[in-house]
Amino acid sequence: MPGTIDSILSDHCRLDRDRPILAGVSGGPDSLCLLSSLYESGWKVIAAHFNHMLRLEAEEEAAAVEALSSRLGIPFAGGKGDVREYSADEKLSLETAARALRYRFLFAQAHRYQAQAVAVGHTADDQVETVLMHFLRGAGLNGLKGMPYCTTLQEYDAEIPVVRPLLDLWRSETVAYCAAHDLQVHYDLSNDSLDFLRNRVRHELIPALETYNPRFREALWRTSRTLAADQELLNAALEPLWQQALLRQAGQYISLNLNLLSGQPPGAQMHLLRRAVQCLIPGHDIGYSDLQRAVAFLADPGNDRADFTGGLFLLCEVDVLYVASSGSSLPTDQWPQMPEEAGSQAFESPFSAGLASGWRFLAESCALEDLGGDRRWEDAGPLEAWLDLQSLPGSLELRVRRAGDRFEPLGMAGHSQKLSDFFVNAKLPARARERWPLVCAGDEVLWVPGYRPAHLHRVQPRTTQVLHLRVLPPE
Amino acid sequence: MPGTIDSILSDHCRLDRDRPILAGVSGGPDSLCLLSSLYESGWKVIAAHFNHMLRLEAEEEAAAVEALSSRLGIPFAGGKGDVREYSADEKLSLETAARALRYRFLFAQAHRYQAQAVAVGHTADDQVETVLMHFLRGAGLNGLKGMPYCTTLQEYDAEIPVVRPLLDLWRSETVAYCAAHDLQVHYDLSNDSLDFLRNRVRHELIPALETYNPRFREALWRTSRTLAADQELLNAALEPLWQQALLRQAGQYISLNLNLLSGQPPGAQMHLLRRAVQCLIPGHDIGYSDLQRAVAFLADPGNDRADFTGGLFLLCEVDVLYVASSGSSLPTDQWPQMPEEAGSQAFESPFSAGLASGWRFLAESCALEDLGGDRRWEDAGPLEAWLDLQSLPGSLELRVRRAGDRFEPLGMAGHSQKLSDFFVNAKLPARARERWPLVCAGDEVLWVPGYRPAHLHRVQPRTTQVLHLRVLPPE
Repeated sequence: MPGTIDSILSDHCRLDRDRPILAGVSGGPDSLCLLSSLYESGWKVIAAHFNHMLRLEAEEEAAAVEALSSRLGIPFAGGKGDVREYSADEKLSLETAARALRYRFLFAQAHRYQAQAVAVGHTADDQVETVLMHFLRGAGLNGLKGMPYCTTLQEYDAEIPVVRPLLDLWRSETVAYCAAHDLQVHYDLSNDSLDFLRNRVRHELIPALETYNPRFREALWRTSRTLAADQELLNAALEPLWQQALLRQAGQYISLNLNLLSGQPPGAQMHLLRRAVQCLIPGHDIGYSDLQRAVAFLADPGNDRADFTGGLFLLCEVDVLYVASSGSSLPTDQWPQMPEEAGSQAFESPFSAGLASGWRFLAESCALEDLGGDRRWEDAGPLEAWLDLQSLPGSLELRVRRAGDRFEPLGMAGHSQKLSDFFVNAKLPARARERWPLVCAGDEVLWVPGYRPAHLHRVQPRTTQVLHLRVLPPE
Repeated sequence: MPGTIDSILSDHCRLDRDRPILAGVSGGPDSLCLLSSLYESGWKVIAAHFNHMLRLEAEEEAAAVEALSSRLGIPFAGGKGDVREYSADEKLSLETAARALRYRFLFAQAHRYQAQAVAVGHTADDQVETVLMHFLRGAGLNGLKGMPYCTTLQEYDAEIPVVRPLLDLWRSETVAYCAAHDLQVHYDLSNDSLDFLRNRVRHELIPALETYNPRFREALWRTSRTLAADQELLNAALEPLWQQALLRQAGQYISLNLNLLSGQPPGAQMHLLRRAVQCLIPGHDIGYSDLQRAVAFLADPGNDRADFTGGLFLLCEVDVLYVASSGSSLPTDQWPQMPEEAGSQAFESPFSAGLASGWRFLAESCALEDLGGDRRWEDAGPLEAWLDLQSLPGSLELRVRRAGDRFEPLGMAGHSQKLSDFFVNAKLPARARERWPLVCAGDEVLWVPGYRPAHLHRVQPRTTQVLHLRVLPPE
């Protein structure tokens, strides 16, 4: 039950009949059928032809597409580019260079004509070849489901979609259509034939597979449709879990709730990880072994960072899993951090200062008797500290760490340790340590916000004056 | 990260180390590796060899397996069957006949030795070949995920599972294992080589595909593992919907909540239908086109029955969808039906009679004034009727329909219709009509239980005596 061109454009791609579509037209049977049937079905269409300058006949083909457009009264946009030169300059294969120049041209023209979509002439045969190539290299659902009717190619344009209205039509049908409509077909070998693997699959492998099943192409087409439906269903079924797990989605990273993720069966973990990858690198078909390594990584408490797939890495921080591109800057606003410019700041209470990302630091002193018997220091949370003011050894300072800093946490009398060891033991992520705010007096660390005050300066029976320190998260 | 034999048997198949496993041993490298490594890992194992009597060397091979078993101190069960004769008698291919006799033997021995499972020597190569054969004919997730570690073969035994502990091991590894353990390998060509397609896939197609990707077998193995995880996830995610939709599961049919099903997107409908098929015909891999036809059938109110897949049919009845094998008897206990033996029964009120499946019929008469002003007949539900007793034309009878029965329903004065037309208009399923109970007097139908009483005998202002009729569903 293949979709018709109209149902694909209206129902699947949700295009608007009142806005133009730009059709990429090479002059071959598929793209001529595309152009003519869009025109026939009453869609507003612009014909765009790109000359790859790879063959002598190319000029002639461009002229033929232009002539057809003019005969049908369709706007024509022609362009050319020296693919050979571009491929040499950029060290790309001819195929990759041709595709890059062609799509760049198509999207530029789509903007110029305010087109709602770029239509390309991929057929059911192209679909079967694509799926088969994915199959050969070992794909999952995402690869085996094949090309969608409607997609965006992020690398060219984030807004205007590429649509494939012929995806349910066989190549033989486009050829028959052109014959029936008296459309003169040019076979531009500089286009598809650059793809060596695709050609071998088309001309060698598929005929070989048809000796096993004469209806192999139809069978594989159905397989891809079934798997596409399965993937859609899986995404829909796991949408609530994804929404629950997703903490933050930025351009270069996604953060997930690590506790929630760890509690899921491996299949669900793989699904969520794959989905994160698809958000970060649309179209990247992650392999099973990468997913398996990632699941093993999540189960291994000894490791907090691992390479993942497609240049992404995984980072576990306390209860957060980051999936991030290498070189991306991960957020720090979940922590108190000294502002970028500030290394150290002397202060006297009362004092208040802004930290990075909207956090604040506050210091107040008072006489213990002013608290009226309220022993609030006994249930101080990690974001506040109460110190014996008179025991403090020098003038107060808010600063980042220094080499040689030592710390004796409350409750650990006689166990002075290197601050760096304290951070490690506290499992504070390494990237948070550099600008972690510290309250010090001279060389002594009085309080590590988020953790404990110094044992030596705790509130004691003899204490009369207290220093109350706080960090406040952004509102 | 392939599973080891131990983890497959313990974690995936949940077998018990204290109970024996029966291993099917042909004498080839896979099954010798199976037998010996089960023995080495400390599992209690019985060696079972079946002689297909297809080749002269078969006796020798049986003797070799028996000798190895005796050397290892493993119980040995030998059997033989004339596959050629059986295949001729039953008009089966040699391959199907060999498989049938072999599995019948293995399960018989498994019972005899009280084995918890039958272990077979399928390897990762067998898995890849199986998946590839499914791929060639156009499979969905169920076919592409390949053979499971643990399954039941309903056609042979509903209780004892078949387990495949070597499924993550390549054939080259079993050969190397046998060499390292000095196990003498016999290649029983009467087994696998009977499968012409599998042999072509193994010896022709896979080497051809390896020219596209030298690691094709590993790639396909990973694909099958990914898809198996996806299918498991999909089943788990849609389990609540399945439980909600499932009304009844019997050996030959499954009934689903048609309203719930119709409200789902096509992907979910396909999933539920596929699951119903898997319950009725385990291992049947339903194709996409069958599923698409079924979804189209559900959307088409003009049709209440359609052929489905694997000899199953679909039947819509009111708010129930049946997925059923042809020839299965669908339930009738949701309706009042006359008992099998009873065609007609004269009665006088008060009267009470049992109908089929625990339903009951009750008749009582009383004076209208005994109701004390309670006009209960005005909100009589479809399972009761109130009639003007004195207007009734003859003696009362509870019976099935007769040719020529006519009926004038309450509220439709002057619109007497054939009872058969009334049933059609009321959308009563055809199979319910034959034994539907009717309350009659002579030729007149007084009440069609579940529907309306006769207009002519309704309670009127002049009524003094009423007849109260009821059918009661089983408790």
